[in-house]
Amino acid sequence: MVSRLLMHVGPSLSNFNVLSSANATNIGFASPEFNEAMKSSLEGVRYVMGADESYTPFILPCSGTGAMESTVSFLKKGSRVLIVSNGVFGDRWEKILSRYPVEFRILKANPGSAVSVDQVVAELRTTHYDAVTLTHVETSTGVRIPLKSMVAAVRPFVNLVIVDGVASVGGEKLNMSEWKIDVCLTASQKALGAQAGAGIVVASEHAVSMLKEESISGYLLDLRNWLPIMGEFLKGRGGYFATPPVGTVFSVRSSIDLIRTETIERRVERHKICAEAFRNGIKAMGLEMVAGEGVRSNTVSGVYLKEIDTGRFLQECMANGVEFAAGVHPLIKDRYFRVGHMGWVEPSHIIKAIDTIAKSAISLGAHLNRADGEKAVLETFEGKVPCF
Amino acid sequence: MVSRLLMHVGPSLSNFNVLSSANATNIGFASPEFNEAMKSSLEGVRYVMGADESYTPFILPCSGTGAMESTVSFLKKGSRVLIVSNGVFGDRWEKILSRYPVEFRILKANPGSAVSVDQVVAELRTTHYDAVTLTHVETSTGVRIPLKSMVAAVRPFVNLVIVDGVASVGGEKLNMSEWKIDVCLTASQKALGAQAGAGIVVASEHAVSMLKEESISGYLLDLRNWLPIMGEFLKGRGGYFATPPVGTVFSVRSSIDLIRTETIERRVERHKICAEAFRNGIKAMGLEMVAGEGVRSNTVSGVYLKEIDTGRFLQECMANGVEFAAGVHPLIKDRYFRVGHMGWVEPSHIIKAIDTIAKSAISLGAHLNRADGEKAVLETFEGKVPCF
Amino acid sequence: MVSRLLMHVGPSLSNFNVLSSANATNIGFASPEFNEAMKSSLEGVRYVMGADESYTPFILPCSGTGAMESTVSFLKKGSRVLIVSNGVFGDRWEKILSRYPVEFRILKANPGSAVSVDQVVAELRTTHYDAVTLTHVETSTGVRIPLKSMVAAVRPFVNLVIVDGVASVGGEKLNMSEWKIDVCLTASQKALGAQAGAGIVVASEHAVSMLKEESISGYLLDLRNWLPIMGEFLKGRGGYFATPPVGTVFSVRSSIDLIRTETIERRVERHKICAEAFRNGIKAMGLEMVAGEGVRSNTVSGVYLKEIDTGRFLQECMANGVEFAAGVHPLIKDRYFRVGHMGWVEPSHIIKAIDTIAKSAISLGAHLNRADGEKAVLETFEGKVPCF
Amino acid sequence: MVSRLLMHVGPSLSNFNVLSSANATNIGFASPEFNEAMKSSLEGVRYVMGADESYTPFILPCSGTGAMESTVSFLKKGSRVLIVSNGVFGDRWEKILSRYPVEFRILKANPGSAVSVDQVVAELRTTHYDAVTLTHVETSTGVRIPLKSMVAAVRPFVNLVIVDGVASVGGEKLNMSEWKIDVCLTASQKALGAQAGAGIVVASEHAVSMLKEESISGYLLDLRNWLPIMGEFLKGRGGYFATPPVGTVFSVRSSIDLIRTETIERRVERHKICAEAFRNGIKAMGLEMVAGEGVRSNTVSGVYLKEIDTGRFLQECMANGVEFAAGVHPLIKDRYFRVGHMGWVEPSHIIKAIDTIAKSAISLGAHLNRADGEKAVLETFEGKVPCF
Repeated sequence: MVSRLLMHVGPSLSNFNVLSSANATNIGFASPEFNEAMKSSLEGVRYVMGADESYTPFILPCSGTGAMESTVSFLKKGSRVLIVSNGVFGDRWEKILSRYPVEFRILKANPGSAVSVDQVVAELRTTHYDAVTLTHVETSTGVRIPLKSMVAAVRPFVNLVIVDGVASVGGEKLNMSEWKIDVCLTASQKALGAQAGAGIVVASEHAVSMLKEESISGYLLDLRNWLPIMGEFLKGRGGYFATPPVGTVFSVRSSIDLIRTETIERRVERHKICAEAFRNGIKAMGLEMVAGEGVRSNTVSGVYLKEIDTGRFLQECMANGVEFAAGVHPLIKDRYFRVGHMGWVEPSHIIKAIDTIAKSAISLGAHLNRADGEKAVLETFEGKVPCF
Repeated sequence: MVSRLLMHVGPSLSNFNVLSSANATNIGFASPEFNEAMKSSLEGVRYVMGADESYTPFILPCSGTGAMESTVSFLKKGSRVLIVSNGVFGDRWEKILSRYPVEFRILKANPGSAVSVDQVVAELRTTHYDAVTLTHVETSTGVRIPLKSMVAAVRPFVNLVIVDGVASVGGEKLNMSEWKIDVCLTASQKALGAQAGAGIVVASEHAVSMLKEESISGYLLDLRNWLPIMGEFLKGRGGYFATPPVGTVFSVRSSIDLIRTETIERRVERHKICAEAFRNGIKAMGLEMVAGEGVRSNTVSGVYLKEIDTGRFLQECMANGVEFAAGVHPLIKDRYFRVGHMGWVEPSHIIKAIDTIAKSAISLGAHLNRADGEKAVLETFEGKVPCF
Repeated sequence: MVSRLLMHVGPSLSNFNVLSSANATNIGFASPEFNEAMKSSLEGVRYVMGADESYTPFILPCSGTGAMESTVSFLKKGSRVLIVSNGVFGDRWEKILSRYPVEFRILKANPGSAVSVDQVVAELRTTHYDAVTLTHVETSTGVRIPLKSMVAAVRPFVNLVIVDGVASVGGEKLNMSEWKIDVCLTASQKALGAQAGAGIVVASEHAVSMLKEESISGYLLDLRNWLPIMGEFLKGRGGYFATPPVGTVFSVRSSIDLIRTETIERRVERHKICAEAFRNGIKAMGLEMVAGEGVRSNTVSGVYLKEIDTGRFLQECMANGVEFAAGVHPLIKDRYFRVGHMGWVEPSHIIKAIDTIAKSAISLGAHLNRADGEKAVLETFEGKVPCF
Repeated sequence: MVSRLLMHVGPSLSNFNVLSSANATNIGFASPEFNEAMKSSLEGVRYVMGADESYTPFILPCSGTGAMESTVSFLKKGSRVLIVSNGVFGDRWEKILSRYPVEFRILKANPGSAVSVDQVVAELRTTHYDAVTLTHVETSTGVRIPLKSMVAAVRPFVNLVIVDGVASVGGEKLNMSEWKIDVCLTASQKALGAQAGAGIVVASEHAVSMLKEESISGYLLDLRNWLPIMGEFLKGRGGYFATPPVGTVFSVRSSIDLIRTETIERRVERHKICAEAFRNGIKAMGLEMVAGEGVRSNTVSGVYLKEIDTGRFLQECMANGVEFAAGVHPLIKDRYFRVGHMGWVEPSHIIKAIDTIAKSAISLGAHLNRADGEKAVLETFEGKVPCF
């Protein structure tokens, strides 16, 4: 157990130094140490998202779902939102928005596919929307959208472009400033590789200006309450609205320090090569990806199983030393499983993942080509060596 | 810095074993280990609150404020709520409820005082309310209400009695079952002494039955979404609605294990003696408590300063090795500071707190009787020795 | 178990930050970080022993017994040594020296007593000795000698004064430079409060000059082998003779950092008050110290039990949450037990120790006055508050 | 720094769970927990060395050199020892034995070569020896001897076969019982992968019977002193001769637990494949191994550099994130460096090592074929996947 590998979709692959940074036994949130850690983390998430200093970062005591919900702070009564959904977490916007006095429509794709830029533009041409929500990487299937071109296409039509980067920030290319993204949100425990416990939002000046309107949000997640606090932290001072997840913030800071050392460019490249190696291994073994060609992410892979039961398969993998994640997309739930290859992912993780999938599935009766899978993984890494 | 003492009001005094339990680098939320930790934590918070098995516990990815807000799940459109407020965190109910379609009235006390049972009953006699919110210990001043008699008095008038136990659970006597409390909420980092990051709610069968009504809550904090998940964890299985604060849960479990070993009765007694020693020291030095006689808590003390600036005083204390908390009650904000003596508090902490307060204040020009303060602390502990 | 208190005579009371500094997963002994930690630790042990820069410190991969044995490096074939022994660890010099081609005589005291300065001087007047060994604090009984006057008295007669400071360094007053001590040795896990694993020796220029003679020592513990290495580390560079206890050195460095912050003067004072409080508690309960009046140490106390079995008593204490040490002096072995109150000792430890002794002994049938014991402890601390 | 890789020859690659097991803040060496950890560790080192229950294991507070020196406990005055040395650590036997009243002769090999079985047998045929010392893997060059056949060949001639397994135990095949080895010693921080601080010796019944003779050893390292203590620990009880390295023992126990889970056979296989991949990478890049064909170990590799300065090269590697070890063999010292690939080594470490060597050497002007090196590593791992 102590040597089990965590390749769930979040929390995912961990770095002990990052996690143990959370053990601040004697440092409270009014200390200079916490002020410093918060400032460093806030500036760091801006760095990771490619957001310049005009953007305001927020670190909140909640999960990624909480970060999503906090973005209703940018809307007002009657705002019209177009939700572009490629799966469960795209659909989650619908569930969230249905609790607030806004109007919305949702465009959906089949599992493994992405709503196309054209489909979105077509909708925007015919109907006015104030905001659009885009899921950079859909955690339920591993589908990634071409975010840059999508944002470029939708930008002229809407006041606010909101990106769910929960499964992408820290592992996918992203540039809020250049791509003109208003709001991007994520969580601490995914590709940032820190401890679970913090929801993270970065907002443009324009988005922040919307916070001056009458709020429709709840209380804890009303960004208006947090705006002055984050401003203080950015200036190196402290502040209080509700208790921050102190330990998690120290962990985020430690993660950011490592990311800065690696550089975000090399980190994304590392994720890319690892993901490619994983997919090549899967294909060579004779399995199929849930996400279609061209929309596969660096961070999460959905993989169809055949011949065997996914529940028993996941238990077998756990017994063989890797924790993967179950499928959650309602249409294909029982036919696939998910793998997180993000955060502190490195080649040995991919090698072990492929080997464990092969070994576990074969032991349950599946017919997989284990040797070909391994070979394909290793060939992908040849000459690339994306270690950090 | 490494030996600084944290006596802020939350996170407060820590236990390294409890904090470091959070470092689960290779255990995801779908693992048997997490299922076990969650079950153990859920049963444990029930134990700490004196709630029998008919009560449903919830552990949520949010702060104590989030736990407060989640209780709107028990209300419906038009519900009438009486808020009994003795300070900033009582007033917080007003701010939370104003975001939801409910009606409320608030009864307020002067800083250091508590709204009396008679005042509350008088209001309930004249006006109908569906629910009443009570703050067991008001973190902004350290005022504690006589919860048992207050609940007994209000119980006949309302459908739901909601108790904010953020600053009391784990350090004050509390028995949800016997005292007929419907809902009690707290946070991981206060008297439970675990890592910050989890909001905790325990609800009676009756309260849970209210969750069947049309919800007015947001999404992340809608207890309806969490109810089946918590049910699964209580059965030793797992479930997912939004990512739980995995590390924090391991820390809560570890804290609960220690509390069970100490027993909640002895833990409350330990808090009581430590608080008494602290107050005796404060008085003997010539300082005054914010909370009046008879309404002083075991867990938080507000202390008036005189002659010197509170900001400089807190910095001086920090330099002398203790982090206390600033005052926050708007009417007296600049005249007092707060001390958390909870969680893993023991006599040496009180001794050091009193000594640091004396030393720091005197160095800034205050006239305090240091020796009398220390003597009073030690005399209080004589023959009691509330170590754990 | 997780909250058990360790008041054994070594390892003794721990500080988690000090211990966890040992977790250097990715730093080898050829790294700049290790060079820095070693330099800082070497300078630190000099500081703690009151040794100026003319002294050479050694940190060795062995226990305190190993540090004792390493001092034969300063002797040569036929050297005559006078051993002044007040118990088991004084006698240990005899066992060590009997393995080497030297001559020695041993002066012994009854358990609880110390060989007097006069006895030692009388012996030195009649017989020539090259070296004398003195045990500052005798771990088997807690007896402390008046080191300063003893050294002053023996100094004129011998070439080398060797002090076993295993149970004193970090908790007792000691000034090698002023008191003209040639060699003083200790171990990492006693009053320095670091992890067990390092033997420590500090030697004067004069002593180091003796290392040029033909060696009679073994190999690992031959200080000749270590002399150039330590010289390199003191210059901020590295070196290798045998693998150093890397983690333990990081722990020593962390301990030294805290000691420097506290200052050795205040640290000794803290030990002194804690020891006094302990003894007052023991006496008030009706128990007797092994060490006689005037020769009681700050760091270790031997306590006679009566009416009950010491083995069962120690088990009962363990069950009640404190690990003490068994008696080891052969003449009184079954009649007493030992308590370490050193390193990170603070008042709460003493309070808990006395309470646990009382509770455990009474539960086994002893007649002790628990309340008086506690009262005496607390009165000792009044107005002193030696917290760090 | 936090993400630097430690591929020194010891301490080497670490596992955080193993290292952090050492943080036993509240557990002394007289506790049931320590007794259990010691028993488990003692049984574990027997398991790792393939020693049946008739063998006695010792865990000592010293380094590997101390473990070597402790084996003089098995000799007596005038014992004749044949030292078979393939480098610095073989020569170390000469330095150790020269401190004791024994006679010895040393057979030496050129750097990178091993004294052959025939050479040893030829010497044993002409001269009588009581004991022979064999270095399984020579840490100074990475040369490994064919231990099984060597022992079989020398066994008939001598009373005691002593094996230095410092750089082999836990990473090389070894079976004391089957191969009829009397004494094998190692250290905690090498292929066992635990914290530095413990010397380890395992001795056959026959060897232990030699401990009854008059001892020529020193005191701390006299196994006679430790024999009854280890006997007690093996029975689940405790004992004391000198302070054990408490934390290190907990770390060894944790390491042993993981080794048992992996099994020693799979662990050796993992080391073998990783070593092979490393060597293939080195060769493909155009570098040469110090150890000749047929005598290369699974655990340590010496590598000749050309064109560039080794000191600057090692600094560059450190800056690029890997700590390797300098050369130490006096004849070739400035022309090579050493790499530890042991303990928790896995493919990603080898990949990173090769990449760092290439990158660093090239940046200093060497002409290496980086891509070929990487390719060769990856091809070696194909279809083998020796993850744990």
